[in-house]
Amino acid sequence: MLDLTQDVGALTAAIVDVESVSGAEKALADLVEQALRALPHLTVDRSGDTVVARTFLGYGERVLIAGHLDTVPVADNLPSRVEGDLLYGCGTTDMKAGVAVALKLAATVAAPNRDVTYVFYDCEEVEAERNGLNRVARDHADWLAADFAVLMEPTDGVIEGGCQGTLRADVTVTGKRAHSARSWFGVNAIHGIEPVLARLNAYEARLPVVDGLQYHEGLNAVGIRGGVAGNVIPDECVVSVNYRFAPDLSIEQAQDHVREVFDGFQVAFTDTAPGARPGLTHPVAAAFTTAVGGTPRAKLGWTDVARFSALGIPAVNYGPGDPNLAHQQGEFVSLSKIAESERAMLDWLRT
Amino acid sequence: MLDLTQDVGALTAAIVDVESVSGAEKALADLVEQALRALPHLTVDRSGDTVVARTFLGYGERVLIAGHLDTVPVADNLPSRVEGDLLYGCGTTDMKAGVAVALKLAATVAAPNRDVTYVFYDCEEVEAERNGLNRVARDHADWLAADFAVLMEPTDGVIEGGCQGTLRADVTVTGKRAHSARSWFGVNAIHGIEPVLARLNAYEARLPVVDGLQYHEGLNAVGIRGGVAGNVIPDECVVSVNYRFAPDLSIEQAQDHVREVFDGFQVAFTDTAPGARPGLTHPVAAAFTTAVGGTPRAKLGWTDVARFSALGIPAVNYGPGDPNLAHQQGEFVSLSKIAESERAMLDWLRT
Repeated sequence: MLDLTQDVGALTAAIVDVESVSGAEKALADLVEQALRALPHLTVDRSGDTVVARTFLGYGERVLIAGHLDTVPVADNLPSRVEGDLLYGCGTTDMKAGVAVALKLAATVAAPNRDVTYVFYDCEEVEAERNGLNRVARDHADWLAADFAVLMEPTDGVIEGGCQGTLRADVTVTGKRAHSARSWFGVNAIHGIEPVLARLNAYEARLPVVDGLQYHEGLNAVGIRGGVAGNVIPDECVVSVNYRFAPDLSIEQAQDHVREVFDGFQVAFTDTAPGARPGLTHPVAAAFTTAVGGTPRAKLGWTDVARFSALGIPAVNYGPGDPNLAHQQGEFVSLSKIAESERAMLDWLRT
Repeated sequence: MLDLTQDVGALTAAIVDVESVSGAEKALADLVEQALRALPHLTVDRSGDTVVARTFLGYGERVLIAGHLDTVPVADNLPSRVEGDLLYGCGTTDMKAGVAVALKLAATVAAPNRDVTYVFYDCEEVEAERNGLNRVARDHADWLAADFAVLMEPTDGVIEGGCQGTLRADVTVTGKRAHSARSWFGVNAIHGIEPVLARLNAYEARLPVVDGLQYHEGLNAVGIRGGVAGNVIPDECVVSVNYRFAPDLSIEQAQDHVREVFDGFQVAFTDTAPGARPGLTHPVAAAFTTAVGGTPRAKLGWTDVARFSALGIPAVNYGPGDPNLAHQQGEFVSLSKIAESERAMLDWLRT
């Protein structure tokens, strides 16, 4: 059985050494479920490879602490190894260090100062429809009821508030086919995409301040395609753009903005996900920021905090790992950062 | 057995009705070989589905008359049908009308005024390595020896001299990958392709006169690709361009020109084929133009005349079909144009 009370760095290494690439989290989810079920102060539920453990102490306030069990594919970087203060291995920073902190709290804080819900979920690293948090929100929304959520994604020990939204759109230019030996009978759609690229090059991204945190938007081409054959003037060229927008914009406002930027061109939206406001003005969040300390910053990438936001739960990212090392073959995490994160969370839940 | 002496329009319909999509010319090649072998004034050779028939009358001058037996895929446009002066069906204009004229000449001109080589070949409509003329040039170059060649591709009864060359090149822009949520850490290669498209849009094509015929060049994008994933700033974008160049330029000169247009960008050539000068100043060609009449014009598309040019044989395109109807589902040919073409060729070979 997994010893949840051991040193949090050793606990991190223990769960890193249980491979759990997205879709193959069962072994780790089984270990987590078994260890949590052994704790009398917790009520444990399971859906697929997502395990939810809750205290029911009768407080008027409940906080949720979540982490995903899955990792990106192993890249010859298991088992884990320690060098000085650093623990190397697949999933160390993203995000088994955060999961270990949550597991240790679940085991050792039998009498917290507010009710706590721990969520360990599957398939965060893959498409949204497989995401365990998404599934539980749909099938067992009551398991996730809370006043505030901390998602222990790697943030280098800094609170990152909210997240930016994201949308993708195809901007299309059409032309007229012709044989390339007599190109003047056609209209070249690839040549016609030049002004679309010119607008992207001239675009000035907003850096708005939302609830006290500064965001940084971006509008970028992420794909381009066009061409029929090597001897044909192409009649269609499509640029796929990705707009990352600050959480002061709704999806509809973000779409209007993109339509305006590409006014005169055909724009079709292919994918959207809303942002989440930082929510740091909520009293429970304020207690958390006081316990953790430091200056919160804006989260630029999209994360599962937006799922909590959609459920009406203010949420932040906070975890010991370095986000810049996520998904890298040489991924590592600082053992002292994990211990520091454990101490901050204990301060929050016990004082 | 195929009756080669019948009316040339009826002969066209007869061979149109023998399906011969590229790679499946055997049935038609067998019929052609059998009919030609029955003619005592011809020596017949065969390589794959290419049939070559020659007179050996001891003239100091030999002309070559060629046509391909294959067609593009049938598109519910067989068997052929006649409406007034028009014969409809797959391959009517491109180029069984021309093949029928050549077959009729082969059968009926037993005593021409110069030696004649007839070539009926396979796989013109597909990749060069399968081309029957290409194969015979490699394996039996002596079969093709001649002073002048007429390729009976559709030209609407006008002599089209030479052909433009063609080359394809990939113009590449590189950048630096980054997560699209923090795009300012990357360099977007798709955005970076804008000046390449600007140069294409600003390009002014040459219209040079070569050996008395006016050509019309073109430089066009025929493909564009770029993009890694929907959340990644792309580090590479490639535009494939096609340059159609007049036959006053060698391949090397054409490549230099493309390098100059895209100076500062990475250019890699992927495909080249030389042009062919009109060659109408050759005495045998002059006799041909006199017999056919009309004003010769420049051939803009690449055709197999360039293969003859590479063998040192001046060659022209001349055939009864309308080139603008080639490869169309509703393809047709004028029966009177076929007869006119037969008369012109008879004038040339009998006077």
